[in-house]
Parts: sequence; C-alpha cells; structure tokens
Amino acid sequence: MRISQYFLPILKEDPANAEVVSHRLMLRAGMIRQQSSGLYTWLPLGLKLIKRIEGIIREELNKVGAIEVMMPCIQPASLWQESGRYDSYGKEMLRIKDRHENDLLFAPTAEEAINDLFRNNIKSYKELPKVFYQMNWKFRDEIRPRFGVMRGREFYMKDAYSFDIDERSSKESYNKIFVTYIKILKRMGLTPIPVRADTGPIGGSLSHEFHIIADTGESDIFYDTGIEEEILANEPDVTKLKSLYAAADDVYNEEEALARKNGQLKQHKSIEVGHIFYYGTKYAEAMKITVMDATGKAIYPHGGCYGIGVSRLVAAIIEASHDDKGIIWPKAVSPFDLSLLNLHINDDQCSKICDQLYTTFSNLGLEVLYDDSKASPGYKFSTHELIGIPKTIIVGAKLAKEGKVELKDRKTNNITELDLDSVLELIKKDL
Amino acid sequence: MRISQYFLPILKEDPANAEVVSHRLMLRAGMIRQQSSGLYTWLPLGLKLIKRIEGIIREELNKVGAIEVMMPCIQPASLWQESGRYDSYGKEMLRIKDRHENDLLFAPTAEEAINDLFRNNIKSYKELPKVFYQMNWKFRDEIRPRFGVMRGREFYMKDAYSFDIDERSSKESYNKIFVTYIKILKRMGLTPIPVRADTGPIGGSLSHEFHIIADTGESDIFYDTGIEEEILANEPDVTKLKSLYAAADDVYNEEEALARKNGQLKQHKSIEVGHIFYYGTKYAEAMKITVMDATGKAIYPHGGCYGIGVSRLVAAIIEASHDDKGIIWPKAVSPFDLSLLNLHINDDQCSKICDQLYTTFSNLGLEVLYDDSKASPGYKFSTHELIGIPKTIIVGAKLAKEGKVELKDRKTNNITELDLDSVLELIKKDL
Repeated sequence: MRISQYFLPILKEDPANAEVVSHRLMLRAGMIRQQSSGLYTWLPLGLKLIKRIEGIIREELNKVGAIEVMMPCIQPASLWQESGRYDSYGKEMLRIKDRHENDLLFAPTAEEAINDLFRNNIKSYKELPKVFYQMNWKFRDEIRPRFGVMRGREFYMKDAYSFDIDERSSKESYNKIFVTYIKILKRMGLTPIPVRADTGPIGGSLSHEFHIIADTGESDIFYDTGIEEEILANEPDVTKLKSLYAAADDVYNEEEALARKNGQLKQHKSIEVGHIFYYGTKYAEAMKITVMDATGKAIYPHGGCYGIGVSRLVAAIIEASHDDKGIIWPKAVSPFDLSLLNLHINDDQCSKICDQLYTTFSNLGLEVLYDDSKASPGYKFSTHELIGIPKTIIVGAKLAKEGKVELKDRKTNNITELDLDSVLELIKKDL
Repeated sequence: MRISQYFLPILKEDPANAEVVSHRLMLRAGMIRQQSSGLYTWLPLGLKLIKRIEGIIREELNKVGAIEVMMPCIQPASLWQESGRYDSYGKEMLRIKDRHENDLLFAPTAEEAINDLFRNNIKSYKELPKVFYQMNWKFRDEIRPRFGVMRGREFYMKDAYSFDIDERSSKESYNKIFVTYIKILKRMGLTPIPVRADTGPIGGSLSHEFHIIADTGESDIFYDTGIEEEILANEPDVTKLKSLYAAADDVYNEEEALARKNGQLKQHKSIEVGHIFYYGTKYAEAMKITVMDATGKAIYPHGGCYGIGVSRLVAAIIEASHDDKGIIWPKAVSPFDLSLLNLHINDDQCSKICDQLYTTFSNLGLEVLYDDSKASPGYKFSTHELIGIPKTIIVGAKLAKEGKVELKDRKTNNITELDLDSVLELIKKDL
C-alpha cells in the first residue's frame, strides 16, 4: 500500500485522555478514532490487526474441528428469560424495545442463542461432541468506558460453545480449547498464563482466564514458574498446567499458594484476554434441552463457553510489545510485512529502487507499507517507528547511487547496509 | 470438509412460512435458521456465502482505491441530530437508551458517522478524493420482516462513502463505483441492470439502483435492451448506460420511456441488490464540514454513498439461479469448489478412492464438501442437488472396482464417466 493512497492519520502529539500506552499509541498511529464514549471507528491500520488476529484464531479453532457460525447481534429478551439471565445480568446489558414494543438486547455473549440453535437442530448423541464459534461485535454497557478499546462498550469477540454428552467428554472439550488458546496466543508472540478464575454470571464450576504478561497490565497474577516452562512446550500438558498454582489478584490466596507451591511463585502485571468456562448442564436444564443418548434416553448435554477479546487483544499486544518510540508488532500479527521508506521522493534513483522493490515484494505476496509521501526523512523515521512494522527498508539518495539500501530491525534498531540482491534474498528467506 | 464433521442440518420437507424460493432453499440447505422475527443465525454453509461475496466486493473496491474501515454498530443520536435525520428517519431506526439515559441507535447506514470521521481527520483538498467503505451488520426495524434474509431486520451490508472537492470530481467517483458495481455483480454470475431511482431519506439529486434479473424477483424493471449489451462489455460505458432508459416500477413512466426509447424496451422481474447516491454537500453543510481548497478557501466537500446488501445478495443469487431440485451456485460464489459423494462408505475401494481424491484436491487448495455420511445414495444425491455446488464427483462401488468415478454438472445434469487420472486433469484445468 502506498501511503499517498492510504488513510493513515498520524498524530504528532500525545492525545489528551489516553491513560494507557496502547490507547495513546493506537490513536497516534492512526489505528482507531473514538466516535463517542466507548465506541470506536477502526481505521485501516487497526482493522488489519483485527483481521490478522481473527485469522490466527480461526485457523487454530478450525484445526480442532470447531465450526464457525454467525449469530445476530440483536437478540430477543425472551431467550434470556428462559435462562434467567435477563433479570440477573445487570445494567451492562444494553436493553432495547423495537417498534412493536418487544424487548430486545444487544448480545454481550451468546450462551442462550447457541443453546437455542442447538435444541432446534441437534437431537442425538451421535452428533456430539460439537464446538461452535463466531466472531462478531458484542456490547457491554460499561459504567465508565476507558483505556480505549481495552474497556470499550462495543468490542469484537470470538466466542465459542461446546456441547458434549457427559461431564467427562465436556471436560475433554474444555481441555482441547484450553490448549488451543495457548497455541493461539503463542502464535501472536505472547506469553499466555492460564489462571484459575471465578465463574461469575456465566455460571458453572470450572473456569480459567488467559492472561498475557505485560509490564503495563492492569491485573496482577501469581503463578508457579513451572507454568512458564510448560507453556513453552510444543504440546503443553493441560493436566500439569492445571496442577500448578496460578491465580489473578482477585482470587489469589497466599496460604493456598504456599501450600501448593512446587517451584518458585512469581508475580507479574498482566492483561486478561481470554476466559473459558465449563458450565455443565446449567443452560440445558434451564432451557429444557435434551439429546438422545445411546440407550435412547433423553439427557441434558453438558456445555462450556470460551471467549477471546479480539479487539482487546490488539491493545493487549501493544501493552506487551512497545518501547518509547512506539509499537513493536510481533511478526505474526504485523499489519504489514515490511515498511519501505523513500527518503527522497524527488530523487530519480531513490524512486526507481523503491518502485522496483515495491513491485517485487508485492508480486511475492508480501504486504508492503510504502512511504511515498512528501514528508521529511526525520518524520518518516519517527512515523514508522510509531507504527512498528518489524522490518523497514530505507532508501536514501546517497546509498541509492551505489545501488544500496538499509534494512532496519524495529526491535533491535540494528541497521544493515545491503545491495538490492542481498535485501531481496534476506526478505525471501524470512518469508 | 467431511460432512461427518460439519454442521449441515438439511430439512427434508419445505418449511412452513417460507414464502419465497430463496428463503425455502436457505432453510432446507442448512444455510440459516431464524432466531426471531427478522433475525437469523448464519450456519456454516450460509456464512461461507457471505464471505465469498464480501471477498469479491472487497477485491473490486480495493482495485479502485477504496479504503476499508469499520464503524461501530451503535452510534450516538447526537450525530444524527446534526444531519436532522434522527427525527426524520422514522420507526425503521432502532432507538436505544444506554444506562446513563443517553440516546443511541443501531445504525441503519453510516453517512453521519463517516462524515464525522472525515471532519476530524481530513482538512485539505490534497487528501481528496477518498472513498471509504465498511462491511458490517446494520439494523432496520422493518414493520413486517419477511422473505427470510431478503427483508430481515439485521442484515450484512457493504456501505461506501466518497468525498471529493467539487461536483465534477464527485460525479467521477460516482461513475467509478457505478462501473465497479457492475463488475462485482457480473463476477458473481449475475446480470445487473442499473436503473434510475429516487433518493429518498438519503437525500441528493442523483441515484441508481442495481437490480439483478430473476424470474422470482419482487420488483419489475423496464429497460432499453441496449443496456444488456453494454453490461456485457468488459468496460461498460457509464455515459451510455445512463443515457438509455431504465427504471423500476416505482418510478417507471411510460410516456418518458417511449420518448427516450432507442431500441426495444424490455420488462423483467428483478431484485434490488445495490443503491448508490450522489448527495452533494448535503451532509457537509448540515454538519459544518469543510476542507481547504487550492486557494486556501474553506469549502464544503461533495459526497456520495453506495450500498450493496451482502446478506440480501445471498438470497438474490438463489432467486436468480435455482431449479426445482435446489440451488445452482455460480462458480465464483459457490461455498465449496466440489462435492464428493462416497455412495458406499462400507466399500473399501470407494472409501480409498474418496479419501485419495479428497486429499489430492485439498492439497491443491480446493475446498471439497466430502459426503462421508451413512446416508443412502438417493439421499446423498438429493442433498447435493439441494446444496447446489457446480460440480460433484460421485464414487460408487461398481465403477470404483474399475478405478472409475462420475463427474456430474449441477446445471446441465450431465454425467461423465472418468478414470481417476482424467478427473484430476479435468478439475485442475478448471481451477
């Protein structure tokens, strides 16, 4: 993408009212704009992040056989009255009346909707287990929206729901998603720590939150260092992970921690990005949902639900990966594969080299953010440090004459001088 | 995808209350389920159609430089009060109060929101022209939702908005999208007819609807046959298209039609799937939006808006392309590239051939719907005719012994007997 044809409204100054670093950087880098309290428009650069993240989540969920559907944002109150949650949910639920005075709501989550779909379409144990998921916009009417998209009102969430014939099988589904969440977050360059959690308004008896380590995080987690080791394994062992102590500050208990400690107990700032629950037959019983078991008897299916905040993850990744110059995107979620800076757009040799590299990389299927704007070299450097694409190719008049360019690494700040062939080789090798 | 691991709840009987063929077929083929009045859950097969269609629209819009953003579904009433449309819009707008008693709404369209984004971020003529678009869920509180997703309440729409420095340039943007819409709809295997239209609540002085020809359509259009010829051209000429008579029944005027007739006037049933407007400075004036022109003077930018109903198109394509056995997907939007029927799953040779073909095609990047279910051959035939994937490979025990399979064309019903090598060759050639 040529910046001259893009929409990338960079802010030179730190915006007022942005209390956390991700909010500040997302505004400055032209990723989002606030429309009103807790409501954001996603600009092209921000939207690319949502798509990268949802792409990784979709791939990993599809690998374990989860099935994507799309439920409506607006749901009838009657569904939520069946589960009893219409009354219990509180003011975070956006309640609506339609033109016929029917009660509706903007879904904050979709247990009732998916259970309703299930009861109308699945009748036999032979069709189980099933995991459904969707990616779409949810709404929670936060009393005080803040921290940008970290605690907004409308947010993009992946929510998944499992259906199994009994508790044992349902806990296997739970464990399958547990491991999948770790893989998803690791693919994004993050260190995920699963911690025990309360079940809250979802209900049920078993729950874990997935936190990512970030010095600027709003939570505190306490965990056995054995967890970090296990997370790094290719196929993390759920049983082992669950056996080690890990809890966020809201449920942390020092006595229990000391009693269960194997290795060293560590404390770290973190951000919650996912939450999973095994809720058993709670919704099936409330909504009178049964399937036929192998003996022909009608039984309640067991279920769990699994959420990842996609829009929240965009901010959380920034909290976990930035420096004082701006964002440092992990490669797997970077909005572009490369930045390409033409430092002197009026220099023929510079522009020739840039156009040539841009065409070559595009033909290789790479997405390049090509800065062909009239801005000064200094402005271009600071803009691309702010945006945080892992690799930048810098083309300036002096080196261009010798057929050379510079390759800069965003994280290390290392700059390497290379001729054109070598830079092509290096980038190809990195594909 | 193996059907045994999919979620494809086929209905054997025609559902009650489905008045139009697309609604009936979408329910029967397991594409959608109604959640409540005008609200639908999209099942995996239906969701694939939305993604195929939005993919084509995105590609064509990106080609002409349009920029994708994402605005929130929920918007503050204050924005719509600026344009005056909060009061004028009527009961189709879903009006909402949040927990602080602020007035919100579920956006039926986004002229105000994009104009607000524009005024806060674009200040100079140098940044124009710009076309922004988004793909997301809209809500219109239809008094009587019907015809399935054709006239639902929550629907998936691509809405685009252009910004230009003056009327001439704005009409060029209008024409650019005009041609792009024709290309988009042609790529989907449809015959689009642009007809003159009223501007209604959007406002402005110039508007076209895009209809597609369908015998079961709810509209009637009247158009010069010269239009069909021009539509078939690789680069349709907008000026010529606009010069020829074309109107839907709501604005059709026989006298005018006769006066302007060049060739033969044709009448046909149709479905409206897109609508574009040039609205000039209407929103800029109402919302006090200016940009600096080349002389340094603050002027009102000119604008237009452009909608395609993505979820409606899923149904419209079915209305335009089906027979008494079911859907016939045009290749470009087909949810899968191939159906693969294993007629005798207990026959080793059948299963071996099917598994082999499934692996080979998947490795080629083809999406195959592999019927490995226990259903009878007759049930499999009728199910896949209902689903309507253009090509089906049929593997039965008798031919399998000779290393042969059948290739069936959904549209012509032609069946060809082929050995395995030939079927691979044929499919590869068709990629």
